[in-house]
Amino acid sequence: MASTAIPVIISLSSKPTSLRKTNNSSDSFLCVQSPNSVSLRSSFVSPSSIELSSNRGVSSVSSASRVRSRICASFAQVMESAAKTDSNAPTIVDVDLGNRSYPIYIGSGLLDQPHLLQKHVHGKRVLVVTNSTVAPLYLDKVVEALTKGNPNVSVESVILPDGEKYKYMDTLMKVFDKAIESRLDRCCTFVALGGGVIGDMCGYAAASFLRGVNFIQIPTTVMAQVDSSVGGKTALNHRLGKNLIGTFYQPQCVLIDTDTLNTLPDRELGSGLAEVIKCGLVRDAEFFEWQEKNMEALMARDPSALTYAIKRSCENKAEVVSLDEKEGGLRATLNFGHTFGHAIETSFGYGQWFHGEAVAVGMVMAVDMSHRLGWIDDSIVKRVHNILQRAKVAYYPS
Amino acid sequence: MASTAIPVIISLSSKPTSLRKTNNSSDSFLCVQSPNSVSLRSSFVSPSSIELSSNRGVSSVSSASRVRSRICASFAQVMESAAKTDSNAPTIVDVDLGNRSYPIYIGSGLLDQPHLLQKHVHGKRVLVVTNSTVAPLYLDKVVEALTKGNPNVSVESVILPDGEKYKYMDTLMKVFDKAIESRLDRCCTFVALGGGVIGDMCGYAAASFLRGVNFIQIPTTVMAQVDSSVGGKTALNHRLGKNLIGTFYQPQCVLIDTDTLNTLPDRELGSGLAEVIKCGLVRDAEFFEWQEKNMEALMARDPSALTYAIKRSCENKAEVVSLDEKEGGLRATLNFGHTFGHAIETSFGYGQWFHGEAVAVGMVMAVDMSHRLGWIDDSIVKRVHNILQRAKVAYYPS
Repeated sequence: MASTAIPVIISLSSKPTSLRKTNNSSDSFLCVQSPNSVSLRSSFVSPSSIELSSNRGVSSVSSASRVRSRICASFAQVMESAAKTDSNAPTIVDVDLGNRSYPIYIGSGLLDQPHLLQKHVHGKRVLVVTNSTVAPLYLDKVVEALTKGNPNVSVESVILPDGEKYKYMDTLMKVFDKAIESRLDRCCTFVALGGGVIGDMCGYAAASFLRGVNFIQIPTTVMAQVDSSVGGKTALNHRLGKNLIGTFYQPQCVLIDTDTLNTLPDRELGSGLAEVIKCGLVRDAEFFEWQEKNMEALMARDPSALTYAIKRSCENKAEVVSLDEKEGGLRATLNFGHTFGHAIETSFGYGQWFHGEAVAVGMVMAVDMSHRLGWIDDSIVKRVHNILQRAKVAYYPS
Repeated sequence: MASTAIPVIISLSSKPTSLRKTNNSSDSFLCVQSPNSVSLRSSFVSPSSIELSSNRGVSSVSSASRVRSRICASFAQVMESAAKTDSNAPTIVDVDLGNRSYPIYIGSGLLDQPHLLQKHVHGKRVLVVTNSTVAPLYLDKVVEALTKGNPNVSVESVILPDGEKYKYMDTLMKVFDKAIESRLDRCCTFVALGGGVIGDMCGYAAASFLRGVNFIQIPTTVMAQVDSSVGGKTALNHRLGKNLIGTFYQPQCVLIDTDTLNTLPDRELGSGLAEVIKCGLVRDAEFFEWQEKNMEALMARDPSALTYAIKRSCENKAEVVSLDEKEGGLRATLNFGHTFGHAIETSFGYGQWFHGEAVAVGMVMAVDMSHRLGWIDDSIVKRVHNILQRAKVAYYPS
């Protein structure tokens, strides 16, 4: 049902029931030819699952759905603009998954509050899994947060090479080697310190070491903070495809210290913001509108703006995950832009494009195709182009 | 509380609460020195957790606990002696784990009843994981059972080298390679056809492929039928220890065709019977007494005796697993003999001793130590020695 009202706040909110049943008439195929490529099947949302609503209409629907949601933001920093945050009180998003529920702490200076981490450490042995880029910046700080006033806890660490191209089984074995050589037992805790690759790999290692040990995530990139740290997906790449090996495994908590973003390269910031933008496009028109107003604050790494954007992204993803943990239907809506995006990553080899960059181009391709099929208005296409340009996502076609 | 009544039916039934809290006074250590060895900590049941009861007393307690159990044996072949089985009607043990519950079908000729397997196959693609010993014997029969009258199902297979020494990540990667090269998707089903090594590896692959696909076990050794196919433990070895990598992952069903035991080497039969004996010793005195009466029938591979022994072993293990899926306490009682046993396997290198052989010697060592500590009567020690000798477990000290 294409909208005729302009201006509109758009929400490409795919309904789970329509996504679950594949509508063959709206399927398409993308074949990428390269030595490592595979042909990927691309399913698009059917026309009936695209909702275009006027500004206030979508906002109220969006608000209503949050009231019904099982996701709670404690100490909610409700801000239409980026208000000043209190660095001592973290924003908390609770991911409700029954006995696998966990909190996400978000805020500035959280690594200086050791109790936040320590209350989620089980046992006296901790293994921090990080990479060669993040370790020099934050490993000491994390060890301090884990052990300050808590001398009974001993911390081991394993530093993996940095990058998507190392997201393979042979790298993961280094985590098992370290855990076993250190004689860790089932009561230990694994801590992922780094971006999405570290989170995915450490999560799979935690799920698989002695059939599952406690697990904490400290994501240090926007992408990991808003996406891979929420929902319990763990993963490794296979030479024939991305994230083909892994499990669902939930952490004890996720601690997001926005100060760690101060050292994030610009290119990675843009890549992460693409995922934030996707979140607004897929299911939260009010949040998308907020992003259009506050993109410059996000680009300037304003802590309050970042906290709000991360919180809202986590709330949205957590709500979807709590309703569909194993990706039976609704959770697949979060894959918007990912079908093309994964094809790009697979075709060019992992690590050439950042995930968010590939998703950004994937979203551009998806809205372009949706427009050509007559499902959406060209104003939506322009707004998607515009916000991605302002977020300075690399590889965005100018 | 040592018994004074002779003769006694013994049950080394460890109470979960006493096992859960480690009693330091009853701990012991075993250090095995070899290039690959690790020192393993051995926890023994405390004196208060060993129950010695007179014959009828234990039988009645044992029966009562089965009435309370959530484990059901449909078409129960209640036999104090080995009665004739009906090959057309499988004995069924239901493992009750909420939405992860599954049936174990036990009987002769079950691979000639395609509907048993086919109703548990999800999707149209199946990957049979087997080894180079079992494939020539049963792969065609399993493919026939999967496809007979069911032409829409296509079956791939991957044949791994046979043996504990191949239970490592590099072998597992062959399963992922085959699944991915065959473009299997999340709706496929993995089938484990073989012994415990195949079951453990295929289970871990099923748990990890695309974050979990359907999984069926067709165990072809007594050890796999009574132990590794019940409870969802999946595993790989690490060079420093056995089964250190893996997850908990439950199958859709387990199909045990006792006819597959006709091709089992004698040494493997003895190894598997050690696990059956352990089951009786740990928690089912009535079953232990039945084994003492029927060991010759089991050694002669009498289908009815085998079906009963496998059923009773599965019921016992399934009952424990349903009460303690993740080995929080009670399930650890099934590790009787395993502390010493794992040390033996680790010290000599995996594959030199069969698992049941190591467990048998581990049980002998455990009852010897329990006797030295004054916890049990020497008549128990003798009965354990005697039944293991009759089962002709290799490496048993004469």
